[in-house]
Amino acid sequence: MATRTEHDSMGPVEVPEDKYWGAQTQRSLQNFKIGGHTMPRPMIKALGLVKWACAQANCELGDLPDEKKDLIQNAAQEVIEGKLDDQFPLVVWQTGSGTQTNMNTNEVIANRAIEMAGGQIGTKEPVHPNDDVNKSQSTNDSFPTATHVAAVDYFHSELIPAVEKLRDAINDKAEAFNDIIKTGRTHLMDATPITLGQELSGWAAQLDNSLRAVSDALHLLYEVPIGGTAVGTGLNTKIGFDEKVCEALGQKTGYPFAPAPNKFAILAGKEGLAEAHGALNTLATALNKIANDVRWMSSGPRCGIGEITIPANEPGSSIMPGKVNPTQGEAMVMVCAQVFGNNAAVTFAAAGGNFELNVYKPMLAHNVLESARLLTDACNSFTDNCIVGLAPNREKIEDYLERSLMLVTALNNHIGYDKAAKVAKKAFKEDKSLRQAIDELGYMSPEEFDEVVDPAKMVTPGEE
Amino acid sequence: MATRTEHDSMGPVEVPEDKYWGAQTQRSLQNFKIGGHTMPRPMIKALGLVKWACAQANCELGDLPDEKKDLIQNAAQEVIEGKLDDQFPLVVWQTGSGTQTNMNTNEVIANRAIEMAGGQIGTKEPVHPNDDVNKSQSTNDSFPTATHVAAVDYFHSELIPAVEKLRDAINDKAEAFNDIIKTGRTHLMDATPITLGQELSGWAAQLDNSLRAVSDALHLLYEVPIGGTAVGTGLNTKIGFDEKVCEALGQKTGYPFAPAPNKFAILAGKEGLAEAHGALNTLATALNKIANDVRWMSSGPRCGIGEITIPANEPGSSIMPGKVNPTQGEAMVMVCAQVFGNNAAVTFAAAGGNFELNVYKPMLAHNVLESARLLTDACNSFTDNCIVGLAPNREKIEDYLERSLMLVTALNNHIGYDKAAKVAKKAFKEDKSLRQAIDELGYMSPEEFDEVVDPAKMVTPGEE
Amino acid sequence: MATRTEHDSMGPVEVPEDKYWGAQTQRSLQNFKIGGHTMPRPMIKALGLVKWACAQANCELGDLPDEKKDLIQNAAQEVIEGKLDDQFPLVVWQTGSGTQTNMNTNEVIANRAIEMAGGQIGTKEPVHPNDDVNKSQSTNDSFPTATHVAAVDYFHSELIPAVEKLRDAINDKAEAFNDIIKTGRTHLMDATPITLGQELSGWAAQLDNSLRAVSDALHLLYEVPIGGTAVGTGLNTKIGFDEKVCEALGQKTGYPFAPAPNKFAILAGKEGLAEAHGALNTLATALNKIANDVRWMSSGPRCGIGEITIPANEPGSSIMPGKVNPTQGEAMVMVCAQVFGNNAAVTFAAAGGNFELNVYKPMLAHNVLESARLLTDACNSFTDNCIVGLAPNREKIEDYLERSLMLVTALNNHIGYDKAAKVAKKAFKEDKSLRQAIDELGYMSPEEFDEVVDPAKMVTPGEE
Amino acid sequence: MATRTEHDSMGPVEVPEDKYWGAQTQRSLQNFKIGGHTMPRPMIKALGLVKWACAQANCELGDLPDEKKDLIQNAAQEVIEGKLDDQFPLVVWQTGSGTQTNMNTNEVIANRAIEMAGGQIGTKEPVHPNDDVNKSQSTNDSFPTATHVAAVDYFHSELIPAVEKLRDAINDKAEAFNDIIKTGRTHLMDATPITLGQELSGWAAQLDNSLRAVSDALHLLYEVPIGGTAVGTGLNTKIGFDEKVCEALGQKTGYPFAPAPNKFAILAGKEGLAEAHGALNTLATALNKIANDVRWMSSGPRCGIGEITIPANEPGSSIMPGKVNPTQGEAMVMVCAQVFGNNAAVTFAAAGGNFELNVYKPMLAHNVLESARLLTDACNSFTDNCIVGLAPNREKIEDYLERSLMLVTALNNHIGYDKAAKVAKKAFKEDKSLRQAIDELGYMSPEEFDEVVDPAKMVTPGEE
Repeated sequence: MATRTEHDSMGPVEVPEDKYWGAQTQRSLQNFKIGGHTMPRPMIKALGLVKWACAQANCELGDLPDEKKDLIQNAAQEVIEGKLDDQFPLVVWQTGSGTQTNMNTNEVIANRAIEMAGGQIGTKEPVHPNDDVNKSQSTNDSFPTATHVAAVDYFHSELIPAVEKLRDAINDKAEAFNDIIKTGRTHLMDATPITLGQELSGWAAQLDNSLRAVSDALHLLYEVPIGGTAVGTGLNTKIGFDEKVCEALGQKTGYPFAPAPNKFAILAGKEGLAEAHGALNTLATALNKIANDVRWMSSGPRCGIGEITIPANEPGSSIMPGKVNPTQGEAMVMVCAQVFGNNAAVTFAAAGGNFELNVYKPMLAHNVLESARLLTDACNSFTDNCIVGLAPNREKIEDYLERSLMLVTALNNHIGYDKAAKVAKKAFKEDKSLRQAIDELGYMSPEEFDEVVDPAKMVTPGEE
Repeated sequence: MATRTEHDSMGPVEVPEDKYWGAQTQRSLQNFKIGGHTMPRPMIKALGLVKWACAQANCELGDLPDEKKDLIQNAAQEVIEGKLDDQFPLVVWQTGSGTQTNMNTNEVIANRAIEMAGGQIGTKEPVHPNDDVNKSQSTNDSFPTATHVAAVDYFHSELIPAVEKLRDAINDKAEAFNDIIKTGRTHLMDATPITLGQELSGWAAQLDNSLRAVSDALHLLYEVPIGGTAVGTGLNTKIGFDEKVCEALGQKTGYPFAPAPNKFAILAGKEGLAEAHGALNTLATALNKIANDVRWMSSGPRCGIGEITIPANEPGSSIMPGKVNPTQGEAMVMVCAQVFGNNAAVTFAAAGGNFELNVYKPMLAHNVLESARLLTDACNSFTDNCIVGLAPNREKIEDYLERSLMLVTALNNHIGYDKAAKVAKKAFKEDKSLRQAIDELGYMSPEEFDEVVDPAKMVTPGEE
Repeated sequence: MATRTEHDSMGPVEVPEDKYWGAQTQRSLQNFKIGGHTMPRPMIKALGLVKWACAQANCELGDLPDEKKDLIQNAAQEVIEGKLDDQFPLVVWQTGSGTQTNMNTNEVIANRAIEMAGGQIGTKEPVHPNDDVNKSQSTNDSFPTATHVAAVDYFHSELIPAVEKLRDAINDKAEAFNDIIKTGRTHLMDATPITLGQELSGWAAQLDNSLRAVSDALHLLYEVPIGGTAVGTGLNTKIGFDEKVCEALGQKTGYPFAPAPNKFAILAGKEGLAEAHGALNTLATALNKIANDVRWMSSGPRCGIGEITIPANEPGSSIMPGKVNPTQGEAMVMVCAQVFGNNAAVTFAAAGGNFELNVYKPMLAHNVLESARLLTDACNSFTDNCIVGLAPNREKIEDYLERSLMLVTALNNHIGYDKAAKVAKKAFKEDKSLRQAIDELGYMSPEEFDEVVDPAKMVTPGEE
Repeated sequence: MATRTEHDSMGPVEVPEDKYWGAQTQRSLQNFKIGGHTMPRPMIKALGLVKWACAQANCELGDLPDEKKDLIQNAAQEVIEGKLDDQFPLVVWQTGSGTQTNMNTNEVIANRAIEMAGGQIGTKEPVHPNDDVNKSQSTNDSFPTATHVAAVDYFHSELIPAVEKLRDAINDKAEAFNDIIKTGRTHLMDATPITLGQELSGWAAQLDNSLRAVSDALHLLYEVPIGGTAVGTGLNTKIGFDEKVCEALGQKTGYPFAPAPNKFAILAGKEGLAEAHGALNTLATALNKIANDVRWMSSGPRCGIGEITIPANEPGSSIMPGKVNPTQGEAMVMVCAQVFGNNAAVTFAAAGGNFELNVYKPMLAHNVLESARLLTDACNSFTDNCIVGLAPNREKIEDYLERSLMLVTALNNHIGYDKAAKVAKKAFKEDKSLRQAIDELGYMSPEEFDEVVDPAKMVTPGEE
């Protein structure tokens, strides 16, 4: 492999000739052969955005000439657009500050800028990875800023729309099925009636509640520590740099980024990412419940609950011919389990800061973005391949409803809980209908019973 | 033991004569001999509040006579005030809906009300535990309503004040120590300077960020499912019941409770509790970091970091005489570890709903309230027994600062990163001061160095 | 409250007159008002055992006179037997080494021994808490030794018997139901036949596999660090002390305790407790699955799976009369969720050692013993109140079996997977029996079908 | 893209012409666009091994002609060797049984075998993916069998050697540093002396203890459910098939696989994988502690503990010139945090079985193998890039040792704990040496002190 020589403060390193990265990226490649996860694409994009915005701010403050600014921004734009994705080979399991990925970005932008300027790659002239691209920054403020930018961007552009799409698909079904009265189930046992529409509206509301948690978590993420540099003090920056970077980021992305009121807290504490992943965790609890309801309600076809049918997307068994399984629901619950695990990983990491730095940063970014991606993809897949094809099995639903003993609850306000319990117990033991049992017990005539026990009247509160 | 006979829909049960509880409580005592955790006091108080408010609403809607309302409310008031705490013997590990604790509450209030009315305990006359005390309710709506009430009340009255007290104590110290310049540390390694006040301000800001997460989580908790009864439909209630209960709760507690827009979601989903415990989890990541900083900064006294001293509250060792340990910090990190574990437990449970119910309710209430209590108590203890006595070890701090090589960072804007690195490396290898190294390298005179490298100027951004 | 003055190396402390504890216990009470968990009873017993055994070893090595040994052992015996349980008021959330509970034990034994000797409590004469009771020990070796002893004792005497009892009860049912052929279910969907006995044998085997994990974990727990004292080196002990303590412990308890080959690893690492709680975690995954199977198989009674019935132990609903719920299964899954959470807490804590000590010791002991107790109690309750009363609903089981389309799998070896799939699909779509469908497709006559598709032949491999 | 038409029981599907996979793989590709994790390489290899062994067993039992057996085994061999890795495009987040990956394997082997036989790909002649390659198997038994095979193989060939390599490197250092006496530290505070060799021996012993947990976990993994087919009963297999497959697997791999005594338990329960990942979790607690010790002991260089130096592998900061960080330790603790998270994910999944199947199988395989890989890679990297270059900073170590007040512990057996405490406190408060303090207190002459307090004698127990 043809190489060129790059230098960093430790000396020369051979780098593949066809790569823009420099000495520090190459050292990391050699020193960290751990696992297969490279830094996620949204982080690379976000680092490009941060470098773009910092060049803008440095220029406005008079610390970076216009030409350098343009060169840096043009190269950063290519990073943002994904044109240089193959220049970011580093894995997550590197230095805990993300310095190597920050330097990867600095090196790639510098060399690409040098190339654009007609210079010689590797000379650090006219654009220096540290002194120019990284100007007024440290990894310690730019990497977490990029993590916030990546999360905000991904949550807004991918995650929230996917959850809303699922919620809307569920709400469409809820509306369509609002007249279908069925047995409710609590403790897995037959309970009082509910409409299928009401049931599904509950799923949608669980997602709405989860979206509120996601939305709440964005507030801390909008606050970025750029301008804090190495330890949060802002050494080697100028007053106002942080504001100008946030303005530039805002213009470029449309999100209301602002300097964190206290930068020490963002470099060393990870409350924002802990809350953000906590919101994903909350969302996953909702999705897990919804997916399980779909799995159980479609169970059967003949020996399960069988109240709904879902699309048969693929053969379900390598040995049982004709079997169809609720596979989208299974993929969803597997994703949720992973998110729950990632939440424990994020918690451990977020708790692990010392003094002026938390050194779990690449791993935190990885987990927040991976969980977000898994949930996004799973919501889209679950919506498209399952929910839109969900249909009621009306025959089964009606059969259950008619036989449910819990219609007896409507009698509480008429004969009291204790007598109503006797009716239900008699019907169960003697395998009779409630109407017959109440008649035999002499509490009510069949006609009165029919008047009082009407499932259609049992799915709302009574009139005042 | 003298007993009386109580009845429920399954038949007679012998109950200790001196207890107000009835048949269902007694059955639970016999069937669930699991572990040692009884339902936490805040839940008992909250159940009393819910029963009080429901009696009010039922009466206003004309479904409960004034006399019964008064009887129920007077008995409920005793529950609220803790006068009947010994009447709630049931453990957390019971039915997953909390029905047995809800019935425990109904039974105790009914029998106490009967006693107040001069009736005979156990007769269900004039106050019936189901038909009167539980009127317009199911466990499935009243128990989660009580859980929300308990959490809101405990968070507001205990947790948040304890965290604020700690934050304020830290801020007081931060202000007092704002002039003390010390070495920063990133990756545990010497870094650029920071003031001790800045460092502590970061801790306080971590707590502020956590409090925002806690505060965000309250929004979902204010929304209660009362009025949903068994499956969320509101069967056996009247329109408006939910509003009236929330009004009564609001008057009684001062918190803005409101009917949940979708009650199905609250009975079967647990997003509110998942987010609430997630906020406790976030708070614990901050506290863990703060406690560890205190532990490490006070380590020594002679062979550790030793930048601060903390109160010596007790002998530290059964074998090493004179040893003093950072025990308050240790108690805090143990509490944090438990909260992280409880968060995993809550996540598992919150994800486990089916159809119209989540049957992890007592365990969820237990974990949210236990974590909240542990954090509250630990914050109070850590503040009173550690933070208020925290003091700088100025001699050590100054010694470190003078020797830190990372003052070299101030040179970046003057001689560039690469030359600055050479200075630092030379100083380290040859065990020299930076001033001497830069002089020997010929980059700068000692006078120029002193001009540029002034720790006091390194703890803020430069002027624009 | 009447008090006496006790002293420790920090000075005098007022202690309640009627308590045996001394100055350090009292300081801890005042400094750690955190949560409500006192050290669990098995730990107190185990500390008594350790003190008993150390006195024995010290005496045999000539470092403790016979009279002191007897005094200490007599007092320790009372601790072992639980007679002094009210003398151990300290909470879990104290110093991370457990020093305060170790000193609590030393103080109580010393003062009780002094009392037995006719001396004056608090004078440390003739028995000194540090110099005599704690002789040749540090908290750092004696507390983890006691934790191992407590876990070994509790696992052997309570946990394993409870799991075996459940397994045996399941196996009894498995045998009784071995002739009951039913539909299997995979992905919650109808699958090929299985006997109810086979199904239950799987539960029992899950418990056996879990017991193997528990049993494996005991190996590391038998190895104790006694004799390591403060940092693992054995300072202030004599060669052979560790062996003698283990001999004495073995005689007293019957378990094969031995000195850990490397004591540094046990003081600072917590692999043994991590593996032990990991085994509880594994056990809980099995119990969770079993409890869920019971819950789902008993669901209904009319609108669920309903293949089995379980005891109706209590009324299930405060609003739905006659409702009966699978409450023992619910208590079990709540316990499992807590154990999963505790496992995360233990993991965090076990990972948190530094240098010569892990300072999460009381919290680790608490979690291992609490999870063990919850699982023990839940297994006993689940066995007694649920499994022993589990019965098949033969009518339902037969009805499902007859209708299951997955009997088609028996055709694979006769007509191939692809044709068999066509039969199943046709039967499902046209709501026909497999026999009718295969006949209409012309693959097989009804007589041939009956010959080949016999559920009773489908529950075992074929003859070679 | 050129395609050909493949068929499954649901009908025709267009598949890329240059791929061996068939209809079901293609359907999965289209239906599960979730995340970026494809099934890990060790699983693909293991599935090849299982198909190879099943062909062998089927042939020996007379159910598969020799020619078909050879064709299948030749194609399977290519899968085993990794030659067909690009034919396995499916992601982890698919059907929870892994049916699609099992069918992917069946389809690739069938089509490759057909190609080898000169047949036409897609015709299922002469080798049918279900009837031949999958003969006597279901996904439900072959996928978990492959998971066990993959884990056993990876643990033995990669994980255990990597941990042993780290342990051996540590032991080498422990031996080399065995004469270096240093201060011990408990609670992060100065404690009694220890040798650096002893300290490191503790790390090695932590790894040995963890390896025992890993080794214990293999026992359950050797037991495989092959021969259980769809629900564990062995339908469509012959008696003896399971034994023959295990023999063939044993010959091919060298590991002692055996039929699980109860196959129902392995299809539906996941105790084996839970225990296996639990062992990885235990290992990670040990690695986390070791990495943290390395990080803290090398902290500084001038303002930290600084007792050891580690290799400077790369520049540590983008802003602080000359900074070097303990990055290998940071990568290790990030990996550990991920493993702790994965353990929670595995626990959730392992607990989630229902009836005859656990449908978290691909995700369980993914997590066990990913955690194993991360730990393997991190151990190798940490050994090569950090431990082998670890060196003591003797000057610092000696300086600390001389100044430590905890040498006072050696006085316990001479003047008692209480007086010794007074000496330490006086020395600390007045900033004096212990020798001076004890002299001033009159407890001992300086000469006696020197006799008694000799660090070299404090790192072992005394002679009996």
